[in-house]
This record gives sequence, C-alpha cells and structure tokens, in this order.
Amino acid sequence: MLDTGSTRAILKHMLNQTAPLDRAFQALSDPTRRSMVERMTRGPASVSELAEPLAMSLPAVLQHLRVLEASGLVRSQKVGRVRTCRIEPVVLRQAERWIAQRRATWERRFDRLGAVLAEQSEATGEGVTP
Amino acid sequence: MLDTGSTRAILKHMLNQTAPLDRAFQALSDPTRRSMVERMTRGPASVSELAEPLAMSLPAVLQHLRVLEASGLVRSQKVGRVRTCRIEPVVLRQAERWIAQRRATWERRFDRLGAVLAEQSEATGEGVTP
Repeated sequence: MLDTGSTRAILKHMLNQTAPLDRAFQALSDPTRRSMVERMTRGPASVSELAEPLAMSLPAVLQHLRVLEASGLVRSQKVGRVRTCRIEPVVLRQAERWIAQRRATWERRFDRLGAVLAEQSEATGEGVTP
Repeated sequence: MLDTGSTRAILKHMLNQTAPLDRAFQALSDPTRRSMVERMTRGPASVSELAEPLAMSLPAVLQHLRVLEASGLVRSQKVGRVRTCRIEPVVLRQAERWIAQRRATWERRFDRLGAVLAEQSEATGEGVTP
C-alpha cells in the first residue's frame, strides 16, 4: 500500500503529464485561437497582424493570446512597442502524437478484426457479400 | 456589401465547419475523457468497464460520456441493460489532420528558412559554426 506522500507524488507526476495536453486541447477548442495558430504557422506575427482579420477588440485578442501562451503552443516577445508571436512546435507535436497513437491503436484492432472475419468466412466457405 | 441574410448564411456555414473541431478538442481537453477514449481504442467497452479504473461516480462518468458522444468521437448503443461505447474514428482523424497540417506548414516554412540561411552563409563564405 502506498503512503499518502507517495500517492501525492504519483498524482502530481500524472497531473504534470496530462496538464500540458489539457491546456493544448483546450486552447485548440476555440475557432479564433485556431485561426491565430494557423496564421502563425505561416510565420511570426505581431499582435495587430493577428488581430487584423478578427472581428473583435484588441483586449479580446490578447486574452486569446494569453490562453495560447499558457498552453505552450505559442510564445511571444516584445521588442520596443511590437509584440511578435510565434509557434512553439513541441506542444503541437505532443497533441498530434496523442491523437495519432490512439487512432493507430484503433485501426490496428480494426485490421485484426477484419483479418479474423476474413479467415472465418474462408473457413466456412462463405464469401463476403459484394 | 452582404445583406444580413447572406452574412448569417456564411457565418452558419463557418460555424458548421469549425464546431465539430471545437467540440472534439474540448472533449479531448479533459484527462478522464482522454483515458476513456484510450480505453475504447482497444475495443468497445461497457459503461461499467469505462468507469472501473476511474475514481468517480457513475453519473460523473456518464456526464463525460455525453460530452464524448456530443463531440462525435464516441458513440454508444444500449442493448438490454448494457450500454456499449465505441470510437467513431472520423472526428478523431479530423482533429489529427487539423494539427498535422498546421505542423507541416510550420515545418516547411522552417526548412525554407534553413535553406535560405545556408545559401546566404555559402554566398558570404561564412561557414556554420560547429
């Protein structure tokens, strides 16, 4: 049996592992934030460049930017009066990998199932209905 | 200038396009829901099988299941007293594709930038610092 300290340490470790994905998927769940990410994949952008195509106030854009930065998907740097924002690809890759691995597990299982059914229909001499 | 009707139609179209991704990423932003998805990628599962490893009440599990079903990532079917839940791969693939395409755009840009810098350093006769 684990003592409370160990349990807490394990939980903390688990939370540290899952929290970046929580924040990444949360950040990507909003269409405005996805369009900001999309803009930045084509190159670094100033806050006004990010805001330009969006029908919202600058404070609203900055709020979305804060969510993106907190998720680690984006970082920004202010030089003089201009804040330049760019993609941080690590978290984007983590989120992609999480989905890709689950999709691959699902597809492998589905392929195995298909193979088993094909074998069974061969064994019983039943063809697949065209 | 677009009349209000056309603008509404366009907005509705845009919302229809983005809403599935909103809901998919929102559904994946919770570690409990991700662990339920993970379980289902290994095969269909009953609600009690999904609930078994989770330290929460059955109503809480059902609430998470509803979010997953609303996102289209999962569907469930009740036969007799058992509700069986399984992955619907279409939305999972859409979410993966959205990230993969943005990541690819970002990487292509980065590669081009690297090629330009390499050309410049060749032209000026400056080697890359080892």
